[in-house]
Amino acid sequence: MSSITDFVRRLDGLDFGGLYGEDFFLTWEKSADEINAVFTVAEALRCLRENNVSVKVFQSGLGISVFRDNSTRTRFSFAGACNLLGLAVQDLDEGKSQIAHGETVRETANMVSFMADVIGIRDDMYIGKGNTYMRAVSEAVREGKREGILEQRPMVVNLQCDIDHPTQTMADMAHIIRHFGGAENLKGKKIAMTWAYSPSYGKPLSVPQGVIGLMTRFGMEVTLAHPQGYEIMESVEKVAAENAARYGGKFSKTPSMAEAFADADIVYPKSWAPYAAMEKRTGLYGNNDFEGIKKLEKELLAQNGAHKDWECTEDLMKITRDGKALYLHCLPADISGVSCKEGEVAAPVFDRYRSPLYKQASYKPYIIAAMIFLGKFRQPQRVLTRLAEKKKPRLLA
Amino acid sequence: MSSITDFVRRLDGLDFGGLYGEDFFLTWEKSADEINAVFTVAEALRCLRENNVSVKVFQSGLGISVFRDNSTRTRFSFAGACNLLGLAVQDLDEGKSQIAHGETVRETANMVSFMADVIGIRDDMYIGKGNTYMRAVSEAVREGKREGILEQRPMVVNLQCDIDHPTQTMADMAHIIRHFGGAENLKGKKIAMTWAYSPSYGKPLSVPQGVIGLMTRFGMEVTLAHPQGYEIMESVEKVAAENAARYGGKFSKTPSMAEAFADADIVYPKSWAPYAAMEKRTGLYGNNDFEGIKKLEKELLAQNGAHKDWECTEDLMKITRDGKALYLHCLPADISGVSCKEGEVAAPVFDRYRSPLYKQASYKPYIIAAMIFLGKFRQPQRVLTRLAEKKKPRLLA
Amino acid sequence: MSSITDFVRRLDGLDFGGLYGEDFFLTWEKSADEINAVFTVAEALRCLRENNVSVKVFQSGLGISVFRDNSTRTRFSFAGACNLLGLAVQDLDEGKSQIAHGETVRETANMVSFMADVIGIRDDMYIGKGNTYMRAVSEAVREGKREGILEQRPMVVNLQCDIDHPTQTMADMAHIIRHFGGAENLKGKKIAMTWAYSPSYGKPLSVPQGVIGLMTRFGMEVTLAHPQGYEIMESVEKVAAENAARYGGKFSKTPSMAEAFADADIVYPKSWAPYAAMEKRTGLYGNNDFEGIKKLEKELLAQNGAHKDWECTEDLMKITRDGKALYLHCLPADISGVSCKEGEVAAPVFDRYRSPLYKQASYKPYIIAAMIFLGKFRQPQRVLTRLAEKKKPRLLA
Repeated sequence: MSSITDFVRRLDGLDFGGLYGEDFFLTWEKSADEINAVFTVAEALRCLRENNVSVKVFQSGLGISVFRDNSTRTRFSFAGACNLLGLAVQDLDEGKSQIAHGETVRETANMVSFMADVIGIRDDMYIGKGNTYMRAVSEAVREGKREGILEQRPMVVNLQCDIDHPTQTMADMAHIIRHFGGAENLKGKKIAMTWAYSPSYGKPLSVPQGVIGLMTRFGMEVTLAHPQGYEIMESVEKVAAENAARYGGKFSKTPSMAEAFADADIVYPKSWAPYAAMEKRTGLYGNNDFEGIKKLEKELLAQNGAHKDWECTEDLMKITRDGKALYLHCLPADISGVSCKEGEVAAPVFDRYRSPLYKQASYKPYIIAAMIFLGKFRQPQRVLTRLAEKKKPRLLA
Repeated sequence: MSSITDFVRRLDGLDFGGLYGEDFFLTWEKSADEINAVFTVAEALRCLRENNVSVKVFQSGLGISVFRDNSTRTRFSFAGACNLLGLAVQDLDEGKSQIAHGETVRETANMVSFMADVIGIRDDMYIGKGNTYMRAVSEAVREGKREGILEQRPMVVNLQCDIDHPTQTMADMAHIIRHFGGAENLKGKKIAMTWAYSPSYGKPLSVPQGVIGLMTRFGMEVTLAHPQGYEIMESVEKVAAENAARYGGKFSKTPSMAEAFADADIVYPKSWAPYAAMEKRTGLYGNNDFEGIKKLEKELLAQNGAHKDWECTEDLMKITRDGKALYLHCLPADISGVSCKEGEVAAPVFDRYRSPLYKQASYKPYIIAAMIFLGKFRQPQRVLTRLAEKKKPRLLA
Repeated sequence: MSSITDFVRRLDGLDFGGLYGEDFFLTWEKSADEINAVFTVAEALRCLRENNVSVKVFQSGLGISVFRDNSTRTRFSFAGACNLLGLAVQDLDEGKSQIAHGETVRETANMVSFMADVIGIRDDMYIGKGNTYMRAVSEAVREGKREGILEQRPMVVNLQCDIDHPTQTMADMAHIIRHFGGAENLKGKKIAMTWAYSPSYGKPLSVPQGVIGLMTRFGMEVTLAHPQGYEIMESVEKVAAENAARYGGKFSKTPSMAEAFADADIVYPKSWAPYAAMEKRTGLYGNNDFEGIKKLEKELLAQNGAHKDWECTEDLMKITRDGKALYLHCLPADISGVSCKEGEVAAPVFDRYRSPLYKQASYKPYIIAAMIFLGKFRQPQRVLTRLAEKKKPRLLA
C-alpha cells in the first residue's frame, strides 16, 4: 500500500517518543510532533481498515472502560478502537462491583488490570475530580508494574474529564484538517468556540476548554465567546494564550456571538455550565447538600434562560466567511424545535451540516486507536509497515 | 470436508444474490431460494464447527445488539453467532446511553456504527413501532455509507419485531426440516399454529405471524387456530394465503384447537395477545394513559381466563398424526403445574418433548450467523470452501 | 522457551486425567496431582504471557459468567482468563433475562450454552444453594451434550459458592508456593486461618472453608481460629482433618487469635458469618420473612461487636514467626481507620503487605485459565509445547 509508506515517512520526521509507555490526559501536555503523530497514525489505521487490512495487533488483552456518566458515542468509539486493535472491552460498572465496599482507587486499579492493556475513563461530572481520578488510576498501575504486580502497565486514556476531552477535540481537529486539505492550510483560519443556549444546565466544560487548548496550536485565530458569567477554567485560557503566542496564532475572548462568528472559517457553538457554578456544585455534592444543588440548578436554568439569543441561526451563519463556515458540534446537539423548543442551533443549520457532523464524529475511534497504538509501540512505523505488507483481510475476502 | 462440497453444490443451484448487502427483516420479503440459502449456510457453518473448523471470517468488527425487551436465548444466540464469525458484541443499552437526551434514531444509528458490521434489534413491544424502528436504523446507516460517514454499512437483523420473528421461525423450520429428513418431505405435512392459554397477557404476535408467513412456503397445510378475539395481523394472514397458493400448500383458520390438532404432523401451541388489543395498548402508551393500560391488562387477563381449555394436553396430542406430532415452542413455555398453575402445555407433554425443544432452539445461532454470512459475502461458496480447506481448528487440537 | 520444557516435564510426572472434560467445584474433589497440575499450567501460561507469547487456544467460543453477587476482582479475573485463551465473555445478567419468567435452570443452562465452552458461576449468598445450583447447571449441560442438543459441553467453574472458593484459595496457594520457593518447602509451615472483626455481617464462609480444605494438603499445620459462635461447616472441618491425616500435616482449632498467630508462617485474618446464622438467614429468605432477616442482621452485628479485639494488629504480627508471617487477604479488607472505624486489620499492617496482597490476587486469572485449559485438553503438554514453539506474539512486536 503506497500511502502507508507516506504515513511512515511522515512519522519518520516527527519526534513522538514521549508517547510510548505513557498515558493520554491533556493535549497540551503533548508536543506538537506528538499530536501530529496521533493524527498520522489515526489516518494510517483508517487507510488500512478502508482497504480491508486487519490492524489487529493484540492477540489477547483487555481494554477497560470506566464511564461515570452516560455515554453512547464515546463508549462505542472506545469499544471500536479496542476491537480494531484486538482488545476485548470489559466495562468496570461501579454499580456491579465492590468498589463501594471499601476498595480504594489504588486497589481497584490493580485488581482489574492483570490482563489490561488500556483503561479508558470518562469522568467529567465534578470539577477537580475527574482528571485527578485518572491520574490516581495511572499512578496506581504504574506502581503495580514497578512492584511486579502487573506484567504490563495499562495505559490510561482520558475519554473526557473536567479539564479536557482530548479524544473529542482531536477528532474535531482531524475533521478540520481533512476539510481544509491539510494542517498546513490552517494558518490564519478563524475558529469561533462559542457558548450557545440550552434548556439544560450543567453541560461539561471539557469541550470548550479542550478546543481552545488544542486549536491554538495550529496558527489559527481562536475566539472564545460566551455571555458574562459563563467563564471557563482560567488555567486553560492561559494555555490557549501561550499556545497562540508560541505557534503564531491568536487567542481572544468576546461576549458577543456575532463578533465571534464574523468571518469565522469554523464555528463551534455549544452550551456549557459556568465553571464557578460547577465548582460550587461539586462542593454541594461533597456535603450531600441536595437542597443546595436543587437551588443551584434552578438558578442555572434561569441564568441560561436570559441568553436564548445565543443560538446558531442561519442569519449568524451568513456572517461567517462567505457564509460557509464549517459548523461543528460534539453531539448530541440541542436543536431548536427538534430536540427542544429553543436550543443551541436552528434546525435548518443543523440539517445542512448533518453529514459533515457525523463525519466529524467518525474520527474518534481512530484517534483513540492511534493513542493506544503510539502508547504501545516504540516503533509504530515498523508495525504499520508489517500490517500493510501482511495484508491480512479484516473481512475474509 | 466432503459435506461442504455438498453444501456448496446446493448453493450453486440457488439464486440468493438478493441477500448480499441487504438486511433481514421479514421472511416473506425473501425469495424461496434466499430462504433456502440461509438454511444451507446455517447447516454448513454448523457442520464446520462440529468438525472443530473455525469459521471466523472477521478479524475485527462489532455486532451491535439492541434489546428493547428482556431476552436470554435471543441475546445469547446473537452473541454466539457474532462470536462464531469473529465479531465482538457491543450492547446498545439505552439506559446507559444518551439516546434519551435528544438523539434521533438517525444520529444514534450512525454514531454506533463506525466499526459495526451487524446490528441486531429486538423490538417487539409496540404494534407499528418495532419493524418501523429497524427500517429507520437501516435507512440511517445506508445513508451514512452513501455519504461517506461509514466505511461499511452494518446489516440489520430483525431479532424479533411486532410483525415477524425470522430468526426464531427459521430456527423452527430448520428443526422441522431435520426432523422430517429434508425440505422435500414437507409437502402435505400438516402444521397447527394454535393459541394456548397463559396466565400472562400481552405475549408478542411475532411468532404466530412469523410461523404462518414462513411455513406456508413449503407446501405444508398450515392451520391457524385461536379463540375468537385473538386475531393476528390481517396483512400477515394475507401473506400466508398467498404463499399457500403460490407454493402449493394450504392455509386455513379454525376456532378449535382440537380441529387444528387432528392429524397434525406438527403442533405449535403458544399464547399471544389479540392484535387489536396490542394496537390499543400502543395508543395508550403513546398518550401515557397508564390508567387505561391497567384497565386493558385486567380485561385481557379476564379474556384469557375464559380460554383455559386451550392447553396442549396428552389427550390432544393423541389425536395428532399417529399421536406423535412434533411439538414446538419458542420457549419459555407456560407449563401447567410447573411455571404456573394452568398454562399452555401439560407437564408430561412438555417433558416428553424437552430434548427436541432444546434442539429446536439450538438452530438459532446458526440461522443468525448464516444471515450475516450471506449479507456479507457475495460468493459464500468460495468462503465456505476456503474455510473447509484451511481447517483452522476452533479449539487448538 | 526452556522453562516450558520444565513445566511439561512436571506435568508428565502427574496423573491429572480426571480434570479433562470435568467441572471444577471443590478442591477436595480433586487429587493432589490434579491440584498440582493446575498450579503447573497456571505458571506455564503466566510464563508464556510474560514472554509475550499468545496462549489463545480458542478461535471462537463464549465464556459465560453468572454473578449472583457484586464482584470486581473475580469478574475481571474470569474475563481475563477467558480472553487470554480466546473466549469472549457473555454475562448472563439475570435481570436482563427471562429467567424470572418461568425458565428452569435446566432450560436456561442449555439455552445459553450452544456456543459456550465455559460457565463461571459465583453464587455464595445462600447456604445450601450456591454449590447445588452449579451442579444443576453442570448436570443440565451434561445431559444437553448427551442428547445432542449441545455440540460441546461447557465446563462449569466455581467462582465462589457457599462451600468453597477454589479459584481464590488456589490463587492464595500459588502465592504461598512462590513466596516459600516451592510446594516442597511447605511441610511443617504453620498457617493461621482466623476470624477477624468487621462492621458488616454476613461475609461468606467460602474463604475460610476453602482455605482449610486446601491448605491441609501440603503438610502444613493449619489452625482455624474464631470466637465461639462463628463455627463454619462441619463437613469441611472433617475434610481438613482427613487431609491433615493423609498428607502428613495438622489441623487444629482454637478460640484465640493470639494462639493461632503464635509462630505462624502465614496468617489469613478475615471476617465471616456464623454458619448457623447463614443457614437461618437462608430459611428466612425462603419464607420471605424480611422482618426476621432484619432482626437477625441486627443480632449478627451485635455479636460481631463483641469481638472487636479480633483485629490483625502490629502487636499480633510480632508474635508470628520472626515477626514476619506472610499476611493474606482475599480483598477487599476492612482496614481500621481507612475503610471503616474498626476492622479486620490495622492500617500499618495492611500497608506493609499491600504489594504482596496484590500479587496474591494476580494469580487468580491464571488459576482460572489453567482450570479451563486442563478441562479442555487431554494432552496439555502437547498444547503448551506447540504454543511455545509457535511463539505467536500476544502484542505484535
